[in-house]
Amino acid sequence: MKKKVDVAIIGAGSAGLYALSQVKKETDNFILINDGPYGTTCARVGCMPSKSLIHIAEYYSDRHDFEKSGIRNADKLEICIPDVLQRVRKHRDILVNYNIKKSITTLGDKALSGKAEFIDVNTLKVGDDEIHAQKIIIATGSTPVYDIAWNDFREYILTTDELFEQKDLPPTLGILGLGIIGLEIGQALSKLGIKVTCVHSKEFIGGLSDPDINKVMVSLCEKEFEMWRGGERASLEKVGDKIQMTSGKREVLVDKVLVSIGRKPNLKSLKLENIGITLDKKGMPKFNRQTMQIEDLPIYIAGDVNADRPLLHEAADEGRIAGYNVVNQQKSFKRKVPLAIVFTDPNIAFVGKEYKEIKDDVSVLIGSYDFSKQARAMLMNINKGIANLYVQKSDGKILGAQIAVPGGEHLAHQIAWAIEQELTVYQMIEFPFYHPTLEEGLYALLLDCIRKLENKKEGILEIPFL
Amino acid sequence: MKKKVDVAIIGAGSAGLYALSQVKKETDNFILINDGPYGTTCARVGCMPSKSLIHIAEYYSDRHDFEKSGIRNADKLEICIPDVLQRVRKHRDILVNYNIKKSITTLGDKALSGKAEFIDVNTLKVGDDEIHAQKIIIATGSTPVYDIAWNDFREYILTTDELFEQKDLPPTLGILGLGIIGLEIGQALSKLGIKVTCVHSKEFIGGLSDPDINKVMVSLCEKEFEMWRGGERASLEKVGDKIQMTSGKREVLVDKVLVSIGRKPNLKSLKLENIGITLDKKGMPKFNRQTMQIEDLPIYIAGDVNADRPLLHEAADEGRIAGYNVVNQQKSFKRKVPLAIVFTDPNIAFVGKEYKEIKDDVSVLIGSYDFSKQARAMLMNINKGIANLYVQKSDGKILGAQIAVPGGEHLAHQIAWAIEQELTVYQMIEFPFYHPTLEEGLYALLLDCIRKLENKKEGILEIPFL
Repeated sequence: MKKKVDVAIIGAGSAGLYALSQVKKETDNFILINDGPYGTTCARVGCMPSKSLIHIAEYYSDRHDFEKSGIRNADKLEICIPDVLQRVRKHRDILVNYNIKKSITTLGDKALSGKAEFIDVNTLKVGDDEIHAQKIIIATGSTPVYDIAWNDFREYILTTDELFEQKDLPPTLGILGLGIIGLEIGQALSKLGIKVTCVHSKEFIGGLSDPDINKVMVSLCEKEFEMWRGGERASLEKVGDKIQMTSGKREVLVDKVLVSIGRKPNLKSLKLENIGITLDKKGMPKFNRQTMQIEDLPIYIAGDVNADRPLLHEAADEGRIAGYNVVNQQKSFKRKVPLAIVFTDPNIAFVGKEYKEIKDDVSVLIGSYDFSKQARAMLMNINKGIANLYVQKSDGKILGAQIAVPGGEHLAHQIAWAIEQELTVYQMIEFPFYHPTLEEGLYALLLDCIRKLENKKEGILEIPFL
Repeated sequence: MKKKVDVAIIGAGSAGLYALSQVKKETDNFILINDGPYGTTCARVGCMPSKSLIHIAEYYSDRHDFEKSGIRNADKLEICIPDVLQRVRKHRDILVNYNIKKSITTLGDKALSGKAEFIDVNTLKVGDDEIHAQKIIIATGSTPVYDIAWNDFREYILTTDELFEQKDLPPTLGILGLGIIGLEIGQALSKLGIKVTCVHSKEFIGGLSDPDINKVMVSLCEKEFEMWRGGERASLEKVGDKIQMTSGKREVLVDKVLVSIGRKPNLKSLKLENIGITLDKKGMPKFNRQTMQIEDLPIYIAGDVNADRPLLHEAADEGRIAGYNVVNQQKSFKRKVPLAIVFTDPNIAFVGKEYKEIKDDVSVLIGSYDFSKQARAMLMNINKGIANLYVQKSDGKILGAQIAVPGGEHLAHQIAWAIEQELTVYQMIEFPFYHPTLEEGLYALLLDCIRKLENKKEGILEIPFL
């Protein structure tokens, strides 16, 4: 079959579907090509099921506070991992089906199953079909990084894509990689009573780069589970019916190993090199973050596949931008303030400028607040963690933050939205902070910045003159 | 003893202490007069202990989700109310002592114990002492409303000031009044297994006035405990060793009754009428909300005692404003956007314009979002409640909100801060909303407003052109 379309979208994940929502506004003549199961990474194997697991882990972990809170027999609670996983899958299925139903089922022959390969900049081969498209959007997502050497004992290895498909989990688990996903899952499984040993080749965990925050988060995590940080990459070997995990002089026998050492873009099978696109050392094409266009070609790249900001809300924006631009006069769009949240206990979050961008900048100061003293957090037995706010010395403008604090997911939004509006700490501290809330921790953080700033405000700090 | 001071502050609660913080910056010649126990209403009997109780109630209530989440033996958990109350008091004592230590202990003879009474606009009588002050700040707080008829069976009546002092609580409890405090406490005690019967003379509970939100909240609460709404005021009568609570045709026998029918300003003993201050029908003096000054007198009134906004963060602002103005050239201050949060399940909150201000205003529309569909809330088994946002039709400016939603305390801050900055729904929807978070419920709420607005945005709704 040969087919001519205005737009071909490769990939029916989050980015592809958001692109589709824009494309549909202008043309009916499109095709959505998908290889493998429908449903987004986010809903199928990513954000959604992990949050369900984390929530149950928190439930179960709360029992440690029960006795001192006046709730008896917490020691009688028992966890049933198969039921936990079933619950997680049930949640996942509801959300996957909801997403798919919303978007795919009505497409009919506009949806095509198969692997796409570039013939020229306007032509794709999908199995025996040839699609000629005026514009093409690549939104093929990513796949967990995996070492084929592990194929010798494949049944002992779990990728994060496979974790939630398990019927049960063993008593001991090695975890390779404590990035964002590894730390979320590793901590949750540990709270669920699985003995995890985590190996991480860096000193910084959970994507952190601010040493203050990392130090606190590491010390909190070390109370919960074993971590080997900053050593050699772990080597795996099958020993009897276990896996021996070795890093330097440390070794441990575990029942299985969960691999969470990153995800790689699904680019290779597209054969971009066939059509003369220059790829960098990592095999990535050059694209414009404001338009999502690759070079000046009729090809756009959106979502995890471009490896720029592999987060759902960014994939949504990138899909929308690409989708808009393939059916309209091309525009450049303003991208959002960077915001990433790690759903650990306490929540890690990164907002705005990164630590490495400000650490040597003498025009920036760092305000800090220790949430172990925070009143509301204390009332909820979650008083721990720390937040750093990066502020421009000249005027108190908020530039960025790294935090690992209770309720961090909410505070991270509040800080991100302040940065979007280019607010200063002086403006933000005039907002109402209700009592007793975790937001008062943010107030204390702003106050610390203001104490360190030289420009003092006249009148009352928290209340402007009329 | 006769003493001359620059400033006398009557009341060492939140408002008085915040006033003191401003006064101290300009003069050492002040006196702080306090009658009764030190420590703020908030920390002693109000916000703080109630949040501790609510948190334990939520812990205990979570057990209903345990079985389906894969956590076994939830039915073996038992609550020990005396231990719960002890835990609450322990939390409270830490916070009360922290507050007092911070502010009172260093005052020496600048702190005076006793009841103050006005002799003239500059003179106070405190026991045998006479204080002449150039400026006086009234910050005497409030007391629970109480009917002296109940003295016939005083040991069966609990005020909210007494609740947390109890060693134990009985199996059945009547609750008079489902305002903000009554609903918080009533729901929490119900979750802790106490059979509560709540009598409320209005149809609207928890301070709500938006009928959509009230309807949902009422139906959620009715699943948890018995409410008699909108009927006659309950009458109480001792029958054997119980109290019979009667309202119209409904009656019930309860072990004790918790009274939460409001708090009244502690004004009477000051004898304001002696010095020619005009009091309104409710016995309240006229004061300026921007300066806290009473008429044009050298007297200021701050905190719960003025009955304007009886909330900690407002008491803090009022104390600061009064404190600033008694020692500086008087200024008018901009007051914060109204924000009140009720720590029920789900959280109720009121932000900005009240429902009654907008309900008949044709220039305002109401956007709505049903949190029973919210993805993250579903993953946490807390998907319930509803949010209404009040928006100016002409430009989408956010004016106010009433909500009863999970995580409402955070969303309420986010909405309040948007109103402080006079943001429109179009501006706010361009912010990053991380996935999967409760903030996406706010996104959906904004989206509903935008769908109902006539002025459509060009390009992509969520992403501005560069």
